[in-house]
Amino acid sequence: MLGARAQGGWRALRRCASLPRAVRLRVREALGAREAADAVRVQGWVRSVRSQKEVLFLHINDGSSLEHLQVVANPSLENRDLTFGSAVEVQGKLVKSPHRKQNMELQAETIRVVGPCDIWSFPLKMKERHPLEYVRQFPHLRCRNNTLGSLLRIRSEATAAIHSFFQDNGYVHIHTPIITSNDCEGAGELFQIETSSEVREPAEKTHFFNVPAFLTVSGQLHLEVMAGAFTHVFTFGPTFRAENSQSRRHLAEFYMVEAELSFTENLQDIMQVMEDLFKTVTSTVLSKCPHDVELFHKYVAPAQKDRLEQILKNKFVTISYSEAVEILKQASQTFTFKPEWGCDLQTEHEKYLVKHCGEIPVFVINYPYDLKPFYMRDNEDGPQHTVAAVDLLVPGIGELCGGSLREERLPFLESRLQRLGLTDAYQWYLDLRKFGSVPHGGFGMGFERYLQYILGVDNIKDVIPFPRFSHSCLL
Amino acid sequence: MLGARAQGGWRALRRCASLPRAVRLRVREALGAREAADAVRVQGWVRSVRSQKEVLFLHINDGSSLEHLQVVANPSLENRDLTFGSAVEVQGKLVKSPHRKQNMELQAETIRVVGPCDIWSFPLKMKERHPLEYVRQFPHLRCRNNTLGSLLRIRSEATAAIHSFFQDNGYVHIHTPIITSNDCEGAGELFQIETSSEVREPAEKTHFFNVPAFLTVSGQLHLEVMAGAFTHVFTFGPTFRAENSQSRRHLAEFYMVEAELSFTENLQDIMQVMEDLFKTVTSTVLSKCPHDVELFHKYVAPAQKDRLEQILKNKFVTISYSEAVEILKQASQTFTFKPEWGCDLQTEHEKYLVKHCGEIPVFVINYPYDLKPFYMRDNEDGPQHTVAAVDLLVPGIGELCGGSLREERLPFLESRLQRLGLTDAYQWYLDLRKFGSVPHGGFGMGFERYLQYILGVDNIKDVIPFPRFSHSCLL
Repeated sequence: MLGARAQGGWRALRRCASLPRAVRLRVREALGAREAADAVRVQGWVRSVRSQKEVLFLHINDGSSLEHLQVVANPSLENRDLTFGSAVEVQGKLVKSPHRKQNMELQAETIRVVGPCDIWSFPLKMKERHPLEYVRQFPHLRCRNNTLGSLLRIRSEATAAIHSFFQDNGYVHIHTPIITSNDCEGAGELFQIETSSEVREPAEKTHFFNVPAFLTVSGQLHLEVMAGAFTHVFTFGPTFRAENSQSRRHLAEFYMVEAELSFTENLQDIMQVMEDLFKTVTSTVLSKCPHDVELFHKYVAPAQKDRLEQILKNKFVTISYSEAVEILKQASQTFTFKPEWGCDLQTEHEKYLVKHCGEIPVFVINYPYDLKPFYMRDNEDGPQHTVAAVDLLVPGIGELCGGSLREERLPFLESRLQRLGLTDAYQWYLDLRKFGSVPHGGFGMGFERYLQYILGVDNIKDVIPFPRFSHSCLL
Repeated sequence: MLGARAQGGWRALRRCASLPRAVRLRVREALGAREAADAVRVQGWVRSVRSQKEVLFLHINDGSSLEHLQVVANPSLENRDLTFGSAVEVQGKLVKSPHRKQNMELQAETIRVVGPCDIWSFPLKMKERHPLEYVRQFPHLRCRNNTLGSLLRIRSEATAAIHSFFQDNGYVHIHTPIITSNDCEGAGELFQIETSSEVREPAEKTHFFNVPAFLTVSGQLHLEVMAGAFTHVFTFGPTFRAENSQSRRHLAEFYMVEAELSFTENLQDIMQVMEDLFKTVTSTVLSKCPHDVELFHKYVAPAQKDRLEQILKNKFVTISYSEAVEILKQASQTFTFKPEWGCDLQTEHEKYLVKHCGEIPVFVINYPYDLKPFYMRDNEDGPQHTVAAVDLLVPGIGELCGGSLREERLPFLESRLQRLGLTDAYQWYLDLRKFGSVPHGGFGMGFERYLQYILGVDNIKDVIPFPRFSHSCLL
């Protein structure tokens, strides 16, 4: 039967030389086709099989979209291997679908099972809505789940949108190094690198790079180098923290978008770029992946859609750290950590502030001098009182971005490094202030937290393809 | 004098409310302006100062282009700090330049030195053509050198072009992990990761991730996971080799573009993507950065321009490994390593083959089974004779890309892993062949080698912002 139909196809081909061989279409293209087509070939994985007396229905997905393509076939085309999860190639006619919910469907002439699926040991099951915690156990298979599929398509679009945003605004993209000999930035516990043979024979005490080498915690200092030549630069790559945290907001390996701008005298200029980046990328994602985003806003975080639209329309709010402490002190709520000027804002404080401001993104600026790293610019509003730092807090996540003006004045930076005993390590950084120093600043945005926020995903492990955290490095 | 002019400016502003405050322009925008403008502000670094009796000439660069903007000023605006390397803000009139070589110039009304430059200790000197080896000693300053500036702008454009190529062709971008527990791929010496405290107290024998963890040598296996859901996927990120090589073609940290395609039964399909990627990205770079590319094709690698144009016009050549060995055997040249079927092609062999084919890119396909990793697809042209592998060799570099069809047939893969004693480690990889396996393949392209090739740069350390190699990890 199958053969006869296929032969029929070939005979037709011979009769009319201009007829093309079956055109290979991706599911997304087939679904979006304007008109019917006679000889179409679609390849993908079976998401459902429904066999009726008169007709066999399949849903095919190839990852090009969340939606499946419906295949309608003669039940005689069914076979034992045609199961959920199997890989198939279907050839036939693309026609207008009689169903309201979809545009086109494929009338199969041939169905070939390219790769069968052992459904008994396959951890995903047909038409079951697996919880994210469940699929997380199968990092090599969970991308075939609808939610993870949508997530990764959105992640890909957001990545492209971030590159476009900066390129369109005249920024030069820089690959800041992953391995670095900087170890004294104070961003928590570091990962150190050795060759496998050094690990096996630690007695030898040599280093591949001659010096101890670490995984980067931020590309900022290297971006500052480049901002001294290109004025506007950005990077978008992996960064690392060896924190022993099981939090739903922390990973050992995560992605950061970082930008640095020269000739910037005002923290507002940095905040404007942060806000523009957020709004531009989010608008692009919403318009390019409407169905994928809808899945999250319907099933994962209802109400997130309206909130996001409101946020895109309004300006972000700004308060100073001092104002924030006042708000916290006047709160009726009792905090585990008593709010006090000079102390770090805790998660509970951030939550309260964001709620206080109406569950929207809030910039907090001008933090105490002693809370922040050496490179932040002294506001000179008192003896080492505050620095020109900014954190962007968002509902449900806490800190999404952090930035600052950098101390460009050689004497200020020299004396601070001296007090910290870091002068020798940062000679090269001081050099940048000796040779045409300019006022500058920049920021970093956690990419996974960004995705968590716009989609309302609770656990950061579900917004990255292969999560790495303490006690876990699968694959 | 300066004050009076500035005051004049403000008076003018008050007289005519509609007159805008000086418009901030980047050098690139100023140079490309269609018409003169009265109140323009440009910021950047001084690349030359030439003081004449009647007129002061400055060249200003802000990294937005290779070309400098010429500033013409009254000598009274000169001051002690206005030196090569200093950062300045110039305000004035943008006018048509009387010189043939440039479009516009800036008639300064005010010049403010934003940050002076200690020219005696500054390692770059005015109007000196510093060799690449010299500036390599100053990784924090070399980006202010013309050649490195052009290089990094090209690198940025090429990065964007690579992302666009894949996005335009329906590929999903995947961030494959940097830290991995895979250690048995056999791609040479690995870097291992431990927390700094584990390094300090190795006696404890615990691992942050519970298992030994390494820096990735390739995202391929993780991309194969994703190709099983999205059909077309790519990644573009850092990869690592702990090779103790001082070669001009090797780095410990380098960037790879990798792609993986499902439903691909033919090695030609993979090669077509490799060729399309190369040609599309190169054409984009040539058209978007003509001046930057010209610098290389004029001063670094003359004749490279014509060669590249020829290459873009013609199809890449393909020969089989067996043919390659025959060609080598018949060569009049004597090789250090005697060419023999079953042995790896050495650099001297690759050089000869490329020369033999006319100094153009050459695909070499179908390598001996025993030379290649376990995941490559058996061609079944004899008992474990050859696999469907491809290397793209290019003049001056050697291997630019490597790819293959992957073994998608469970029994073939199972028996090969068993022979290698790797079955347990790769259970997850075998799973991919149990649940809807499809014929697939992919490739990787070394991004630094790509840049070396199109620009004719001899040493790989000069095409990456911060090179890492044995005995060196500066900054």
